[in-house]
Amino acid sequence: MWADLATIGRNADSGGYRRYAWTGADADCRTWFQEQAEARGLTCETDRNGNQWAWLGDPSAGDAAVTGSHLDSVPDGGAFDGPLGVVSSFAALDELRRRGATFTKPFAITNFGDEEGARFGLACVGSRLTAGRLTKAQAYELRDGDGVSLPQAMEATGYDPDAIGPDPERLARIGAFVELHVEQGRALDLSGDPVGIASAIWPHGRWRFDFRGEANHAGTTRLADRRDPMLTYAETVLAARREAELAGAVATFGKVSVEPNGVNAIPSLVRGWLDSRAPEQSALDVVTAAIEAAAREHAERNGIDLTVVRESFTPVVEFEHALRDELGKILGGRAPLLGTGAGHDAGILSESIPTAMLFVRNPTGVSHSPAEYAAEDDCLAGVIALADVLEGLACS
Amino acid sequence: MWADLATIGRNADSGGYRRYAWTGADADCRTWFQEQAEARGLTCETDRNGNQWAWLGDPSAGDAAVTGSHLDSVPDGGAFDGPLGVVSSFAALDELRRRGATFTKPFAITNFGDEEGARFGLACVGSRLTAGRLTKAQAYELRDGDGVSLPQAMEATGYDPDAIGPDPERLARIGAFVELHVEQGRALDLSGDPVGIASAIWPHGRWRFDFRGEANHAGTTRLADRRDPMLTYAETVLAARREAELAGAVATFGKVSVEPNGVNAIPSLVRGWLDSRAPEQSALDVVTAAIEAAAREHAERNGIDLTVVRESFTPVVEFEHALRDELGKILGGRAPLLGTGAGHDAGILSESIPTAMLFVRNPTGVSHSPAEYAAEDDCLAGVIALADVLEGLACS
Repeated sequence: MWADLATIGRNADSGGYRRYAWTGADADCRTWFQEQAEARGLTCETDRNGNQWAWLGDPSAGDAAVTGSHLDSVPDGGAFDGPLGVVSSFAALDELRRRGATFTKPFAITNFGDEEGARFGLACVGSRLTAGRLTKAQAYELRDGDGVSLPQAMEATGYDPDAIGPDPERLARIGAFVELHVEQGRALDLSGDPVGIASAIWPHGRWRFDFRGEANHAGTTRLADRRDPMLTYAETVLAARREAELAGAVATFGKVSVEPNGVNAIPSLVRGWLDSRAPEQSALDVVTAAIEAAAREHAERNGIDLTVVRESFTPVVEFEHALRDELGKILGGRAPLLGTGAGHDAGILSESIPTAMLFVRNPTGVSHSPAEYAAEDDCLAGVIALADVLEGLACS
Repeated sequence: MWADLATIGRNADSGGYRRYAWTGADADCRTWFQEQAEARGLTCETDRNGNQWAWLGDPSAGDAAVTGSHLDSVPDGGAFDGPLGVVSSFAALDELRRRGATFTKPFAITNFGDEEGARFGLACVGSRLTAGRLTKAQAYELRDGDGVSLPQAMEATGYDPDAIGPDPERLARIGAFVELHVEQGRALDLSGDPVGIASAIWPHGRWRFDFRGEANHAGTTRLADRRDPMLTYAETVLAARREAELAGAVATFGKVSVEPNGVNAIPSLVRGWLDSRAPEQSALDVVTAAIEAAAREHAERNGIDLTVVRESFTPVVEFEHALRDELGKILGGRAPLLGTGAGHDAGILSESIPTAMLFVRNPTGVSHSPAEYAAEDDCLAGVIALADVLEGLACS
């Protein structure tokens, strides 16, 4: 199952995956999903927002148990973020059949579209649309780096962008959604457990900092005459690290764009994106306010115009305690509770339906990189845990 | 004459010019040059390296007086850097004819190809090739941001890349080359003179700093576990400014490229280009060594691998004193001597033939930007000065 998926969208130079929404690699992943579903006798459908569902039993019966994750990737992402949850879902079904377990409720495996937001800049587009947390009008505003809009991209790959929108009836049929995911930190490695249960997703957001100065010749402009926005950007990058350390949060400038971006030109514009997250909303507020204040102070000193725009924000997600506690009981206390700084479709859906997450140990803690890793034994432990959970929730 | 040129390669959004080597805008500039030459009865030719020459008289007679500059631009450059020298050359010829002056030597106006290096990253490609300061093999290695090589780009626009190479016979026919250029600083503004004479071009170079860390998830990776090259880049940007101030030099990071450049990904690679220049070689050595040392110190502390490559370097250019002094005499002491941090074709050619430069006042000192400016009166003063110089050098 892994082998067929392993080559799709893999970049030979970086060794990482480039599976972006509504591209050829994305279509190949979707074909793989359909083949896996059909090989197991599941009924495959794609919903109005491009999410794939593979059903066992009658969806309209309600109270369905659903598991799954996503197959798309960040630029040069690893093999596990997303696909481990989908592959484990199919493998858990295989395990339940091996055990002779019978589903007493409808069951489905999902592949949510455009979870990483690598192409259009907004994460979890498929689940956001379905949960009504992104409107059709907002989705139509999304554009990729080449100026292609989301509806254009959908149309180009044969989907109907007119159909997108909230899907409350579909969500109303779900009794519980469980997403298994490779851990994106080292908590399980430090605690020595192969599998954990999510307690909460930290509040997090993206802010765009536009530093505008004056383009000028890098060789002839006296230092005193410069309004160089790269200097203010650099001060802000360092302030972000400093303030995050003080607040017990994380803050990252991982994306930057420069105009005119010439070796011998002082930039007119440096645009940097801040990603910041913290265990508590209050800590996140403190750290982002402090970074912006530092940026404004440096901007004023260097004659730089600064605009800060919050491009996205997700408040803290506490997974439903009843479902979370049930998972804990089923797994017999062998899976510790842990929070995470990463957003997930499960977090988006948790406002609409009971959701839970399982994490599989990642010994290096590295993710969003080809170095992302989970040992085979831990992946198998994840499959067994997911099968146990599904058996406890939906089988007799 | 200006009006026809003013629209070529102009970007409506930025108001700046994008005239890159071997593009459509470049071809349009070349057509304009040919039309101007032919309207004045000059014989137009393009040499093996893509430089345009408009001749009056027989080039083979030798000891020619040549003037001109370039028509290409940096990204979103201003209207004057390059074109002012070419337009003033044609206008000076018109002025000499108005005066009834007769050339006693062959005379030519030039448009050197790819002076800014905006597309292939190396400045003064046309004059470097002609002067034998860039080999054919080196030129064949040049690639633009889309991976198109210089010979491919030449071929695509109908030039023969096989022909490029040194052209000593052509240079041997030139007795003096004078380039007029808009000043790229405020020395003339501060001294109150419309026109100045170049004394020297500062030594300058470009260094590429590759900061390699570890790509990871921006939300889930503890600060302590990160190897984030953006932090080291930021420290280096600030160190460059600090060290340049101390050494009386200039140092600029104006171009940066990031991998994977995702909002929620700690970068694996931040590549920054340093442009540095100083009045003396010793000061340049001090400042670049200090910047590299600071970068290495921060890189080591943050677990970042650093590679520094010198991509280009031009030693100090002292313009020939005899020609320089002759210009001073012709202009009757009304043009002060001044150094410059900018490279020019005249600087490249100065090793092969006697060259000199005239600068026209730029009240803001801004260049390589749409805000680059010279007042009409000062442009006219430049034309008169250039006509005086040409008359003194080559007319009876």
